Amino acid sequence: MLSREQVQRVVDMALAEDAPFGDVTSQVFVPAEAVARGSVVAREPGVLAGTDVLRQTFTTVDPGVHVEVLMADGERFAAGDVLARVQGPARAVLQAERVALNLVQRMSGIATLTARYVEAVAGTDVRVVDTRKTTPGLRALERHAVRCGGGHNHRFSLSDAVMAKDNHLALVPDVTAAVRAARATLPHTMHVEVEVDRLDQVEAVLAGGVDTIMLDNFTLDELREGVALVAGRAIVEASGGITLETIGEVARTGVDVISVGALTHSVRALDLGLDLDVQPRA
Amino acid sequence: MLSREQVQRVVDMALAEDAPFGDVTSQVFVPAEAVARGSVVAREPGVLAGTDVLRQTFTTVDPGVHVEVLMADGERFAAGDVLARVQGPARAVLQAERVALNLVQRMSGIATLTARYVEAVAGTDVRVVDTRKTTPGLRALERHAVRCGGGHNHRFSLSDAVMAKDNHLALVPDVTAAVRAARATLPHTMHVEVEVDRLDQVEAVLAGGVDTIMLDNFTLDELREGVALVAGRAIVEASGGITLETIGEVARTGVDVISVGALTHSVRALDLGLDLDVQPRA
Amino acid sequence: MLSREQVQRVVDMALAEDAPFGDVTSQVFVPAEAVARGSVVAREPGVLAGTDVLRQTFTTVDPGVHVEVLMADGERFAAGDVLARVQGPARAVLQAERVALNLVQRMSGIATLTARYVEAVAGTDVRVVDTRKTTPGLRALERHAVRCGGGHNHRFSLSDAVMAKDNHLALVPDVTAAVRAARATLPHTMHVEVEVDRLDQVEAVLAGGVDTIMLDNFTLDELREGVALVAGRAIVEASGGITLETIGEVARTGVDVISVGALTHSVRALDLGLDLDVQPRA
Amino acid sequence: MLSREQVQRVVDMALAEDAPFGDVTSQVFVPAEAVARGSVVAREPGVLAGTDVLRQTFTTVDPGVHVEVLMADGERFAAGDVLARVQGPARAVLQAERVALNLVQRMSGIATLTARYVEAVAGTDVRVVDTRKTTPGLRALERHAVRCGGGHNHRFSLSDAVMAKDNHLALVPDVTAAVRAARATLPHTMHVEVEVDRLDQVEAVLAGGVDTIMLDNFTLDELREGVALVAGRAIVEASGGITLETIGEVARTGVDVISVGALTHSVRALDLGLDLDVQPRA
Amino acid sequence: MLSREQVQRVVDMALAEDAPFGDVTSQVFVPAEAVARGSVVAREPGVLAGTDVLRQTFTTVDPGVHVEVLMADGERFAAGDVLARVQGPARAVLQAERVALNLVQRMSGIATLTARYVEAVAGTDVRVVDTRKTTPGLRALERHAVRCGGGHNHRFSLSDAVMAKDNHLALVPDVTAAVRAARATLPHTMHVEVEVDRLDQVEAVLAGGVDTIMLDNFTLDELREGVALVAGRAIVEASGGITLETIGEVARTGVDVISVGALTHSVRALDLGLDLDVQPRA
Amino acid sequence: MLSREQVQRVVDMALAEDAPFGDVTSQVFVPAEAVARGSVVAREPGVLAGTDVLRQTFTTVDPGVHVEVLMADGERFAAGDVLARVQGPARAVLQAERVALNLVQRMSGIATLTARYVEAVAGTDVRVVDTRKTTPGLRALERHAVRCGGGHNHRFSLSDAVMAKDNHLALVPDVTAAVRAARATLPHTMHVEVEVDRLDQVEAVLAGGVDTIMLDNFTLDELREGVALVAGRAIVEASGGITLETIGEVARTGVDVISVGALTHSVRALDLGLDLDVQPRA
Repeated sequence: MLSREQVQRVVDMALAEDAPFGDVTSQVFVPAEAVARGSVVAREPGVLAGTDVLRQTFTTVDPGVHVEVLMADGERFAAGDVLARVQGPARAVLQAERVALNLVQRMSGIATLTARYVEAVAGTDVRVVDTRKTTPGLRALERHAVRCGGGHNHRFSLSDAVMAKDNHLALVPDVTAAVRAARATLPHTMHVEVEVDRLDQVEAVLAGGVDTIMLDNFTLDELREGVALVAGRAIVEASGGITLETIGEVARTGVDVISVGALTHSVRALDLGLDLDVQPRA
Repeated sequence: MLSREQVQRVVDMALAEDAPFGDVTSQVFVPAEAVARGSVVAREPGVLAGTDVLRQTFTTVDPGVHVEVLMADGERFAAGDVLARVQGPARAVLQAERVALNLVQRMSGIATLTARYVEAVAGTDVRVVDTRKTTPGLRALERHAVRCGGGHNHRFSLSDAVMAKDNHLALVPDVTAAVRAARATLPHTMHVEVEVDRLDQVEAVLAGGVDTIMLDNFTLDELREGVALVAGRAIVEASGGITLETIGEVARTGVDVISVGALTHSVRALDLGLDLDVQPRA
Repeated sequence: MLSREQVQRVVDMALAEDAPFGDVTSQVFVPAEAVARGSVVAREPGVLAGTDVLRQTFTTVDPGVHVEVLMADGERFAAGDVLARVQGPARAVLQAERVALNLVQRMSGIATLTARYVEAVAGTDVRVVDTRKTTPGLRALERHAVRCGGGHNHRFSLSDAVMAKDNHLALVPDVTAAVRAARATLPHTMHVEVEVDRLDQVEAVLAGGVDTIMLDNFTLDELREGVALVAGRAIVEASGGITLETIGEVARTGVDVISVGALTHSVRALDLGLDLDVQPRA
Repeated sequence: MLSREQVQRVVDMALAEDAPFGDVTSQVFVPAEAVARGSVVAREPGVLAGTDVLRQTFTTVDPGVHVEVLMADGERFAAGDVLARVQGPARAVLQAERVALNLVQRMSGIATLTARYVEAVAGTDVRVVDTRKTTPGLRALERHAVRCGGGHNHRFSLSDAVMAKDNHLALVPDVTAAVRAARATLPHTMHVEVEVDRLDQVEAVLAGGVDTIMLDNFTLDELREGVALVAGRAIVEASGGITLETIGEVARTGVDVISVGALTHSVRALDLGLDLDVQPRA
Repeated sequence: MLSREQVQRVVDMALAEDAPFGDVTSQVFVPAEAVARGSVVAREPGVLAGTDVLRQTFTTVDPGVHVEVLMADGERFAAGDVLARVQGPARAVLQAERVALNLVQRMSGIATLTARYVEAVAGTDVRVVDTRKTTPGLRALERHAVRCGGGHNHRFSLSDAVMAKDNHLALVPDVTAAVRAARATLPHTMHVEVEVDRLDQVEAVLAGGVDTIMLDNFTLDELREGVALVAGRAIVEASGGITLETIGEVARTGVDVISVGALTHSVRALDLGLDLDVQPRA
Repeated sequence: MLSREQVQRVVDMALAEDAPFGDVTSQVFVPAEAVARGSVVAREPGVLAGTDVLRQTFTTVDPGVHVEVLMADGERFAAGDVLARVQGPARAVLQAERVALNLVQRMSGIATLTARYVEAVAGTDVRVVDTRKTTPGLRALERHAVRCGGGHNHRFSLSDAVMAKDNHLALVPDVTAAVRAARATLPHTMHVEVEVDRLDQVEAVLAGGVDTIMLDNFTLDELREGVALVAGRAIVEASGGITLETIGEVARTGVDVISVGALTHSVRALDLGLDLDVQPRA
């Protein structure tokens, strides 16, 4: 689902950053003709994301590296599982290793964390979604990882949906009129979402005709009240400091969508390793 | 210490990613002449990193935004402290907000975490260093954040120091000769570090003339033995799964350097916010 | 509404293309200290678009050029009207002239053509929208020009809304199920539009829950029938070969949106000129 | 005649612009293993230009797409003719379709329009040439299209020939001396062309030794007089508001070159389509 | 004559190459508030080229650096002359120093060498011209340096003039027809130059109507014979292994142009230095 | 040892610079189906560097060009030796020729010159090293060429080693303390080198714990005295105006490293040529 070009842009940038003047260690310790065979192995359980990134990192350093992916993005693995096999010129494999792992570990970390949030709302129809709190430069990859973990994406960027927050609302004298004006001005394909901080703002926002209303930092009781108030007239999104501990209860208030910044803003890279079998002769 | 160009490259990339076709919300909700004044406020205590990034993100969107930084990189702040003030065209301030915060929160998260590791080795001469497990594209920024937290940097990239690991050593019949050959081939300014997995490898490595020997995944006892064995003939680095809980003990084994991948590979973005006072008229 | 960076990327590319080794004519005919004062003048009536582009093209060649814009994007002008004044080093003004005009003429041509389509549906609530048939590299600018002409934008790119066409539908055994699956998978902010070629497809599509249904290449009678059939359950878009002559009738069928590829795929650059008063001495 | 790199730069830019976060429609409606076979078909007659662009757009999205071009650049086709066949992964074919068509339609539109101008001067030795009024970023492609239509190119950019216009001449006290100085300063390979607005300027310009003299906005009688006056001492170019209706008469005045901005500044994209046969299973 | 953008592209690339992770020496040895004042001093006599490059390198690192250029491009200087003064933040001045000098020394080396060749043909009307044997990435700068030294430029690139060499001629059965076909096909502004290796090729080439005929690797006698044979029907260029020792004699054979690859392919950087007065306090 | 990406960046830039609008000569003189076979031949003896660059330049213009490299980087060749064979579409071969040769001639010129310096210190253990006086944009390639000639590299950039010069030392009140502070601040992998101008500075510098001390512009006697004074406590580097004539004597003073700016700052491109056998039919 990630396009080849999106992945390539990240891979090119990462490799250039990691070796502005080449890999001096391989240059002196690794004979040009040495071959490496290796396995990408999980050191802990998780959900896989980033197999395309893995493949393209190795083949960018040297098209002669062969990467065989054994599991698909979105699959669960156990500690010890082999996720992929890599074979090719040892210099290239060793040079690409860290960049490939940095990306796949981060992506799989996001997928795995997302899966835990999704499990915590099991039995409800709620969707767990990400936010714009992604790593600059890696948004497409991190969004893909959220999907691999069973989560959903929110808007991709400032350009593809309206999200009016408190600071925007402070600038408009009449919220209902402002939302109507937005609908009248923007593409008919543009989703309009407005954030409210208090229940007494809900009616004015709905009157303008929003698609989604976000209830920001509401208590559980307020959320339930908000859902009742909206009464199906818009999608209801809960947001604000929701954690693995609280998301279950939030989901049971009847909201439709729960956005969780933590999916991407505080990622623990999953522990994956490349176990190599290197040999002097090709 | 970060150069203007390094910061600018990241800021340009991040802004383009976040608004491929502009900020549709500001376009309809914010009058062109509206002005915003705001404060970057800490919602939790920490160590600051990224003030240059903060400034350049806002002024890139619009050179008319004025950013006054109130605390310096490396300073500690408490919850509620105001880190910077921002004033300028409201559309620009609102468009830049998330990108600026994404970067500064991440950098300050790294600085804050690093400071905790550094505190945990207080009373020793050990230096806590980062690794190449940084976010692709953000290495210069993340390395700067480690320094802001009182940590030290390891080599920047594959190009500026030798780090021979088990896979490299597996390719050379005689480690001592290989290290000597590396020294003979590479720039005289090139630091040579070799990783060993067992104590019985130490003498052969030292005989080649390394600058640093890395003891990978050693127990505390083995580390103490390693330090005694090296006996000042090289810098001793401990590595491998060291945590906030264990780093104190590791430091007291007498090693010189402890590398901690977690400083950058699993970052929790610090909770910072931009409190805005927006007004319709300039 | 165009961001400074979007404009700058186009301007930088255009200037580099037009002078890979400098402007040889200015170099020999224009003294370094000569100053040019000039007016951008309309040679025919129209609607203005691209004043930011005009300004940034001249100041990119030389920040010492001063551009005073006299009319705003979206304003109508008559033949002979002065749209902007330019003053600065003559070499820079002469080098930038063609690139600036190429862009503003094209943008104003789009705005002017759009305004004619919009006038042709006056008295209805229909919105005239553009398509993805824009010039590669100039989409953000051309979309802005459509807005200047009173038109609306359709989705910006393949990434910000679903548009399932005949070829997509041919791949799914059950359209209703496919649309439901799309809604279940994609962001809740993602608008879902489906194109139909025949009236008997309408119910199945609506059953899946689309936001917009596009009636492609329908006759006027079929459009009326389609509008009645949809009965407010989705936005109705008419598309396919609609011209200035036919758009009025199409609008009166009751559709909500009419998309017109011609707004951008076949642009006549508006006739604007730069009348210069050049002088040898500063 | 277009180089691979020139085409690739445009294709990369266009694809990135059209899908900053991937093609969401294909992602949900098209199975990863679906295959598409299709034909690029002419919906109206014309002259073909852009077959390399067509091929590279599809293969850039996925190297697994096979494009068989059936007609060559510069060939005439009738409505209904199949210009090329495309076969490959359906997601890639559908994602690339619009970008490929946008470029080939525009290029073929230019080639077709150029061919009409060239036909209008049939029976004379006059060459019809383009101007610098090309689309920013697409000059190399549009110039190639002019050649496909039987037209000739004028100078490519500000760097490869002198073209002194009224504003340049206004800066020099003595035109003859200025042209001589230009010849003395610039590369011996640099063509020198000067534009005149009145017949009484011709002798002074010729005295300086120009290669081409451009008669700008002359009447037919003035053009004939100008040709007689120049008498073979320079190439004579007619310019200024020449249309399909007037170009024949202009050609018969005896001028050598007629430049027509309309070839590229006001392009109607030719109506070409991609008729697809998509199938769920490979 | 160099455009700001041309210079900026080179400066940006050079600075990024020279400091992928900042200037570690300045970071630790130079206080942030230290100021440097310095003079760019000639250590040997020569001809200056590159003052714009000098200025833009320092101000790119820090806009707070002030560069005062004391001599103009093309001026001669003696050993000990001060060419420019620099003042600003010491870290920035020290970081920019080497990049700025690398470029200006190389450019001034070219200008100075060119001036020697030009002096060697004093008293003739011959122009000394450069070739395409320039440093990849620096052609615009090196061509400017040739002009600063009193030389002339040849064609800038493969795109702006025809230069048919032996390998091209080997592919055409009839040289006269081939040259005619080239003229008929290419822009009327395109200069056509053909290289010949033997005198008996001259007539056939002239018959096609070339602008310049290049006599490659001719003896002095052959050159004289060639000039007589051409008899003013084309510009005559001598080429091939011409040195400072031989160029005078070649010039006196009556040729019009002498191309010298050595102007740019074998450059000795001129000895220029930056004498700094650095001070701890601002 | 050069990575594929490093080479590709230079090749892409060089080809774009040399043909912004294609190769007009090949377009008209070379039939599309013509094939060229050729040999890269040495016209003078030397040391080879740049075979990867040679290969990638031709295959970038057209992947259908086959390049067979007959000698390896670092090998010596005689005048007349064939270094590589090239075969493929004649247009591509002719377009790539000059860019490929420009790079390989420059690189082989550096390798050959370096080899002469290295020979001049034969019989000693001294290493001859390069400096940062490289061509902007080509550092990685030029550094590789130095290695091909038997030389060694110094630090690659401002980021990978400390080099404190007179201007840095002027800013610190206590050199010993400053060097200690540098070591305490910078990565443990960072080599610290300090330049001294006088023998009486040596002890203070050594006391801080430097890795290398550079004796700048010392006489032979001073160098001998310096070596004795340092007495193995640091690597000793001689620098400053060392030539082929003087390097032997300098080497025999006992210094460890001699840096020679001339290796890269004043390069004579080696005389290599491409002898082609072009044929009209494929």
